[in-house]
Formats: sequence, C-alpha cells, structure tokens
Amino acid sequence: MERTAPGRTFRERLERSWERSGSLLCVGLDPDLDTVRACLPGSDRPILEFCRSVVDATADLVCAFKPQIAHFAAARAEADLETLIAYIHEAYPGVPVILDAKRGDIGASAEQYAREAFERYGADALTVNPYLGWESIEPYRRPGRGVVLLCRTSNPGSDWLQEHPAGDPLYLRVAREARERDAGDLMLVAGATWPEELAAIRRAAGDLPLLVPGVGAQGGDPAAVREQGADSRGRGLVVNASRSVIFASVGPDFREAARDSARSLHSLLRLAG
Amino acid sequence: MERTAPGRTFRERLERSWERSGSLLCVGLDPDLDTVRACLPGSDRPILEFCRSVVDATADLVCAFKPQIAHFAAARAEADLETLIAYIHEAYPGVPVILDAKRGDIGASAEQYAREAFERYGADALTVNPYLGWESIEPYRRPGRGVVLLCRTSNPGSDWLQEHPAGDPLYLRVAREARERDAGDLMLVAGATWPEELAAIRRAAGDLPLLVPGVGAQGGDPAAVREQGADSRGRGLVVNASRSVIFASVGPDFREAARDSARSLHSLLRLAG
Repeated sequence: MERTAPGRTFRERLERSWERSGSLLCVGLDPDLDTVRACLPGSDRPILEFCRSVVDATADLVCAFKPQIAHFAAARAEADLETLIAYIHEAYPGVPVILDAKRGDIGASAEQYAREAFERYGADALTVNPYLGWESIEPYRRPGRGVVLLCRTSNPGSDWLQEHPAGDPLYLRVAREARERDAGDLMLVAGATWPEELAAIRRAAGDLPLLVPGVGAQGGDPAAVREQGADSRGRGLVVNASRSVIFASVGPDFREAARDSARSLHSLLRLAG
Repeated sequence: MERTAPGRTFRERLERSWERSGSLLCVGLDPDLDTVRACLPGSDRPILEFCRSVVDATADLVCAFKPQIAHFAAARAEADLETLIAYIHEAYPGVPVILDAKRGDIGASAEQYAREAFERYGADALTVNPYLGWESIEPYRRPGRGVVLLCRTSNPGSDWLQEHPAGDPLYLRVAREARERDAGDLMLVAGATWPEELAAIRRAAGDLPLLVPGVGAQGGDPAAVREQGADSRGRGLVVNASRSVIFASVGPDFREAARDSARSLHSLLRLAG
C-alpha cells in the first residue's frame, strides 16, 4: 500500500499526489451533525455516509482530504472517523489524509495524541499547535507521516499573538524554525486571508508545503494564494475548502453540488503543466 | 446539583472547593493503558476502574481532578471518560473536573470542541491553547464553566515561543489579556518549573486562579509555587500532580500509594486556615 511504502517521506507522497491529481485543492470534511442530517434524512450513520459521498464526488479533483476531528468527537462518532479514513485509503490510495485536530501537548500526552492520530485513525498527517515549543512537536514525527504546524491562521483575531512583535512576528519564527528542522515531514498552516503575509512565509519557509485554509467561506482568493504562496516550482500548496464545498447544497443533491463547487475551485488551483 | 446552580461562576465553585477541601492540590488522571493494566491485571475496563479507584483514594485531599483526554482517546476509551466524569460529579459533587485537552480552533470547530467538553463529557472547565487568538477562546465561555488558558507551560522547550520577546514575553501578554477579559471563568496554566516567572504572572494576572503543572515528576517545588504564585488571600492555585500520585506504585497497592503521595503533597498545599 503506497502510504506505507518504506523510505517514502510525507513530502514525497504529497508530491506524487500533486502529480497524479494535477490539483492543489484539499477538501475539508467538517460534518456538522445537524447539517448532514438535513442532507441525508433517515440515515443511520449520517456523518459517515455524508463524508463518504463527498469523498467519492471529489476524490479526482483533490490532492488531499482534511477531516476535522471535533465534528466527529462532539457527535460521539469516533468510529465513523476511523471507518472514513480507512475508506479513503482503500478507495483512493495515494490521496493523503490530513487529520485536523490542532493537538498541542508534551511528553506522554503528546505521544498518546500521536498514537490516536496515526495508529487509531491511520491519518497521514496531523495539524499541531506550536505554542508549547519544539519538544511538543517531536513526538509526532514518524517515518512517512507529516506534521502540519499552525503558523499564520486564517482568522482575524490571530493577529494578537501571531503578529507579535512587529519586525519578527511569531509566525515567521515558526516558519523559519520549521524550515530548519524539516526532514520531508513538516508543513505550515498559512491562511488565505493574509495574501501578503503568504509571500513572507514562503520566503521564510523555503519550499515547505503550505496548508492554506480560508478560501471559500472565509473569502480568501485562490489566485492570490497561488501567486503569493506557490513554491519555486509553482506548487507547494494544499488549499483547503470545507463548507463551501461540502455544504454547497444542504439537501439531497449535496453530492452534485459538492462536485460542482470542487470543480470550480480545482480549475483555479490546477497545476500548470 | 451544585455544579449547575444558576448564577454561580466557575470561580465561585472553585473558591468553594478550596474552602471545603482546604487544599490547593489537583490530581491529574493520565491513565497510560500499559501501566494501568499492570495495576489491575484481568480488569475488563482497566482505565475506568483505575481512575475511579484513584479518585476514591484522593477525593478528600484535592480541590479538583484533571483527566487528560489523549490517554483515553488513544485507547478508544471515550466511554470510560464519560463514565468517569459522571462518577466524579455524582460521588464527589463540588469537586470541579478540568478536562485537559488543550483545544485550539476557531468558528464551528471550536464550537464542536466546546460541545464535546461540556455537553458530551460534562467537564466543568477545559484547557485551551491561545495561539489562534481571543476569538478562538470565546466559543468555550459558558455560564458556570471555566476556560483554562495555556500561559507559561512547564516544559523547557516552551521558551522558544512563550518567552519571546524579552521584556514583553507572550505569556505575560496572555496573562494580562485574560485578566482584562475575565468574567469569573478564566484561569491560566503556569508551570511550577518556572517559580520566578510565576511571580510575574501573578502580578500580571491579578487574582486569576493558576493551574500549576510540573510539581512531582517534573521536579517543581510546591513551597516555591505557593510563595510565588498564591493570590492576595493565599489561595488562587490549583497545583496539579499526575504520575507522581497515580503511579506512585505500579501494582495492586496503587490505591494506598496514590493516597500516601497525595497526602504528602496535600500537607504542603494546605490552605492556611
């Protein structure tokens, strides 16, 4: 199975996924229970069935999927998350699954979070919060797996800590350090809502891949993201859209609507080539 | 039931717990599966049985319990965590449960994490990572519940971001802002391993309560914590010990060993009265 091929780093797997899909688009799976029930009235496992349908409708258009764990946890649907990720690996091998959990802890607790993400759920990469420092990041580094560090998040209130202080904002500090410590396994979260800062992050981060939320519902512009954020070869981006794709329609036609929405984003996020 | 009494803030409930227990000690419940199996060979639900036993052995010595969620999640033991917290509320009403999950996200995802912590698990307070800014904290603020913000964590590597920059380190920025925004619901995590900084945090935070990890296995000194970190009335501290109490013995006498260890810490962390 490709995702466990010996000696392949997460970065190499992501490169292959860009090649194969020709796409920088990532679809975020945030299955709000009330909304998915409206899409699938009468379903026994609406969260699983909804996510699987969206995956089937968009898999050929994406370089990655990103399930957000809180939506499963609040609904006691951990088993659905396990089944969903196993399904993606089986049905669409080679499409990496980035588990969005924004974990951040040290020592034994961090090791348990790593076991949760990589052993229990079989994720290929995990989002991690850097506030506790580098020793809180090391426990997640495993052969073939990726760690996606929060760097510059897409929300306006992130200024308060991440912009601090002028001249050497935290997010550039995170970006530089990640570049130095990378072993083909690190990525950075950098919001689409700050296109000018994307360019600064790209300079600080070298060719580290960026996971870019904030396109779609939050209003970030895919063209600007591409222009400011692409790496030296015009790729290096995993541009995430969640609600604007998966809830493009809240009703029985959600599959077609998700596909249409993913297709328009895909046309803006196609690899030159 | 006391924990849902109308109009009572988390702070007021914590004050009552200090009064009733005469203690600043918090016992952290980090039930590493291999270790709890060694304590309870043959148990069907070793995590639940272990935690319940430690709770029973120490409840009269503590002002709070702090289960760490990763240890449950890695072992697919979410149901045990639900049952454990319900048990603490029923058997020891008035002892707050701080769920240690260090969540950090925005918008719909943060709301789902809040539902997970407060509705699914029935926690009284939740640890939250401030890296995404204040809008990532607001979704957790609910009547009667508490939010415990990471401020200065106990690990050496936390310097890298939290100390930055000299003169106005991040952790003081977090402390000042929390003081301004408090409505009886905020606390700060401040590690026992940095006693001099505890004094600076106390000055910045006014009488906000501090959750202090790092006593016990990490080597922090309870007397120094008290001297530097107590509020104007000699309380204001929730001093956590996890492994040094719960795994004081790894074997069938773990209950007595946990109680003995909690009792020695309690004698150092008794309220003057």
